[in-house]
Amino acid sequence: MSAPSSVPDPIDGLWAVVPAGGAGTRLWPLSRSSSPKFLRDLTGSGRSLLQGTHDRLAPLVEDRFLVVTGRAHRDAVAAQLPEVDEAAIVAEPSARDSMAAIGLAAAMLERRDPDAVMGSFAADHVIADPAAFGDCVRTAVGAARDGWLVTIGIEPTFASSAFGYIHLGDDLEGHPGARSVVEFVEKPSVDVADGYLATGRYRWNAGMFVVRPTVLLDLLAEGDPAFAAALRAIAAAPETLEEAWGRLPRIALDHAVAEPAAAAGQVVVVPAAFGWDDIGDFDSLATLLDDPDRASVTVLGDDSLVQALAATGLVVPAGGKVVAVVGLDDVVVVDTPDALLVTTRARAQDVKAIVAALKQSGRADLT
Amino acid sequence: MSAPSSVPDPIDGLWAVVPAGGAGTRLWPLSRSSSPKFLRDLTGSGRSLLQGTHDRLAPLVEDRFLVVTGRAHRDAVAAQLPEVDEAAIVAEPSARDSMAAIGLAAAMLERRDPDAVMGSFAADHVIADPAAFGDCVRTAVGAARDGWLVTIGIEPTFASSAFGYIHLGDDLEGHPGARSVVEFVEKPSVDVADGYLATGRYRWNAGMFVVRPTVLLDLLAEGDPAFAAALRAIAAAPETLEEAWGRLPRIALDHAVAEPAAAAGQVVVVPAAFGWDDIGDFDSLATLLDDPDRASVTVLGDDSLVQALAATGLVVPAGGKVVAVVGLDDVVVVDTPDALLVTTRARAQDVKAIVAALKQSGRADLT
Repeated sequence: MSAPSSVPDPIDGLWAVVPAGGAGTRLWPLSRSSSPKFLRDLTGSGRSLLQGTHDRLAPLVEDRFLVVTGRAHRDAVAAQLPEVDEAAIVAEPSARDSMAAIGLAAAMLERRDPDAVMGSFAADHVIADPAAFGDCVRTAVGAARDGWLVTIGIEPTFASSAFGYIHLGDDLEGHPGARSVVEFVEKPSVDVADGYLATGRYRWNAGMFVVRPTVLLDLLAEGDPAFAAALRAIAAAPETLEEAWGRLPRIALDHAVAEPAAAAGQVVVVPAAFGWDDIGDFDSLATLLDDPDRASVTVLGDDSLVQALAATGLVVPAGGKVVAVVGLDDVVVVDTPDALLVTTRARAQDVKAIVAALKQSGRADLT
Repeated sequence: MSAPSSVPDPIDGLWAVVPAGGAGTRLWPLSRSSSPKFLRDLTGSGRSLLQGTHDRLAPLVEDRFLVVTGRAHRDAVAAQLPEVDEAAIVAEPSARDSMAAIGLAAAMLERRDPDAVMGSFAADHVIADPAAFGDCVRTAVGAARDGWLVTIGIEPTFASSAFGYIHLGDDLEGHPGARSVVEFVEKPSVDVADGYLATGRYRWNAGMFVVRPTVLLDLLAEGDPAFAAALRAIAAAPETLEEAWGRLPRIALDHAVAEPAAAAGQVVVVPAAFGWDDIGDFDSLATLLDDPDRASVTVLGDDSLVQALAATGLVVPAGGKVVAVVGLDDVVVVDTPDALLVTTRARAQDVKAIVAALKQSGRADLT
C-alpha cells in the first residue's frame, strides 16, 4: 500500500485536453454566454473553474495542455491562463459539440506526439481531492497505453437524474483499478437511478476520457470515416480550419465514439471517488459551498454585504451592494450589476426558463 | 339623500395640518431616514404619499395648509408641494413626537384665524375613496365647531394588532354621523381585536383629529399647562422656536390629549369607511397593490423589468435592473441601487430588525 502524495508526479506523454464551453444557463445571472461558468470563480477560491482545472492538471501534464474554446472566449481564456502557450488555445469558429472539439485536439496531438495519451477534462468541474484524481488518471493512462478508450466513473453520491451512468463490468486484467464497461446509459429517472445505486455497479459519466489520439480517431472512423478524415485534414492544414469546421457533424463524443465502442467491448472505466461536482445549478453550488456548522445563509463573495435573519440558502452579493434576507429557507439570491435572481434551491433547475424568457422578450443582452 | 360629489366643495375655515414624519423603517430599503415613506410614490400613482395627501385635502381646504416636518426634509417637502406657500411648511428643529408638532400648528392657527378648525392628517396614509373621506371630514368639522375634539374612526377590515382602537359610544345629538367616544384602547392582541370586531363598536384609530385650535390647546393645558403655554409662546415669537423647541415634552397627542379628553367625555368620533391604509409594511403594501385577477407577482414600478415564474408576492425593481423570481409564493423583493431586500409577506414586520442590524454594523448610511 502506498499513500497518494499530495503533489502527484508528472505522467510521461500525458496531454490535458480541456474543452472550455457551455453557457451554464442554469447558473444565470452569474454565468452568461459572454462570461460563462468556466471563466467564473464559483467556489470563492480566488480562481475560476478553468484556472482550477489547470491547477489540478498541471502537476500531471506539466506544460502539455490544449484548451479548445469558442472564439468569443479565446482572449479571456488566454488571460486567465498565462502559463499556457497561446498556440495551445484552440478557438473553434463555432460550437459544433464535443466530438469535433475533442477530435480536433486528438488530430493535432496525433501529428505532434506519436506517444501521446490525451486526457479530456471539462473546464468547469470541481474536484475535492486532486491527489486521488491524479492516481485515477495514472491508472487510466496505463490502460490507454494498451489501446483502450478509458473513462473515469464517478461514484454517485445520490440517485441523480441529471447524469448519464456507466455500467461497470469485470476487472480488467493487467490494470488493477480498471474495469470493463458493459454500457453507457442515458440520464435515467430517479427511480431507475435508485436501482442503479443499489447494485453498486453504476458510476456517473462525467465525460472524462483518457485515450491515445489515434485510438480515438480510429474509433470515430469506424462509424464515420469522413468525420475522422476531416479532423485529420484540418490538423494537417490548420489554415483550412475556418472553412472546413462548419461542415463537421454536430455530435457528442459519447454518441459518436463512446457508446458504440462500449457496445463493441473496447471501453474500460476507472471507478473513482475524489469528490466531483459539475455545479449544474445553484442547488449543487449551495451543496458544494455549504458549511454544515453554519446556521445562516451561505455567502459566495463578500460576507460583509449580507444581512440574514432566520434564513438559509445561498446568497451571492456580486452586485456589490447590501443584500438583506429575512425569513426564507433554502433561498437562492444572486445579485449582479445588471440582473437579480431570487429562487429556491428546489427550483434551481427552472432558472433556464428565465434565460429563455429573457431571450424571447428581447433581453438576450442579459443572457 | 344626496350622493357624494366626486369633487367635494371647500369647507369654510378648515385648515389641513399635515404632520410629515416617521422613517417607515419596515419599508426599508424603499423608505430611508433620508427619504422617508411620505416622500415616496408607494402606490405607483406617480405621486408621493405626501402629494396624494395634498391632492385629497386641497378640494376641502383650498390653500389653507400647514405641513410640519423635520428640518432635513423641509426642502424635499417644498419641492414636492409647489402649490403650498413655503411659509406654510414648518420645520421642526428636532423630532419631538406628535403633540409638539400638531400643537405648534394649533398655536399658529389660533393666532392667525380665530374661526379656524384644524384637521390633522398624516402625510403617509392612502385613502381609496376621497369623496367619502371629504363627507366624513365635513361631519367632523361640524362637531368640531361645537367645541368637540373629533376623531375619525376607520372601519376595521381585519383583527389587526398593529393599530389602537376607538370604542364607540352613543350617537351625538345634533351631529348625524358622529358618536361619543367611550375610550381609546391601545394596540390589542389579535384575540382581543377579534372580540372588538365582533361587537361592531370599535374602530381603528388612524390619528386623525379635527378640532378648533383653541380647544386642542386648552385640553392640553388641562394636563400640562406649561406645554400649552410654551407652544403659544413660540407661535407668538417664532424666532424663539429653535431655542424653545428642545425643551418641549416628547409625547404623542393621543396620550397628552385624546385619551384624557375621552375619559372626560370630551371626544367624539365620526365612524367611516373610505378604504384606508397606512402602508405599515410590505405585506400591507402588497395587499394594497394586489390585483386579484393577477396570478403572478405584483410589481411596483417598471413591469417590463420583472420576470416571474411560478411566483406570487410583491416585486419592486427600483434598482432599474432585471429581477427574476422563480418558484416562491408571497415573496417580497425590493431592489434599490444600494440595497436589496428579500423576504416574505409573513415576515414583513421583521424588516425593522435588518435596519437595526445595519445601524449596529456601521451601515447607518443605508438606513
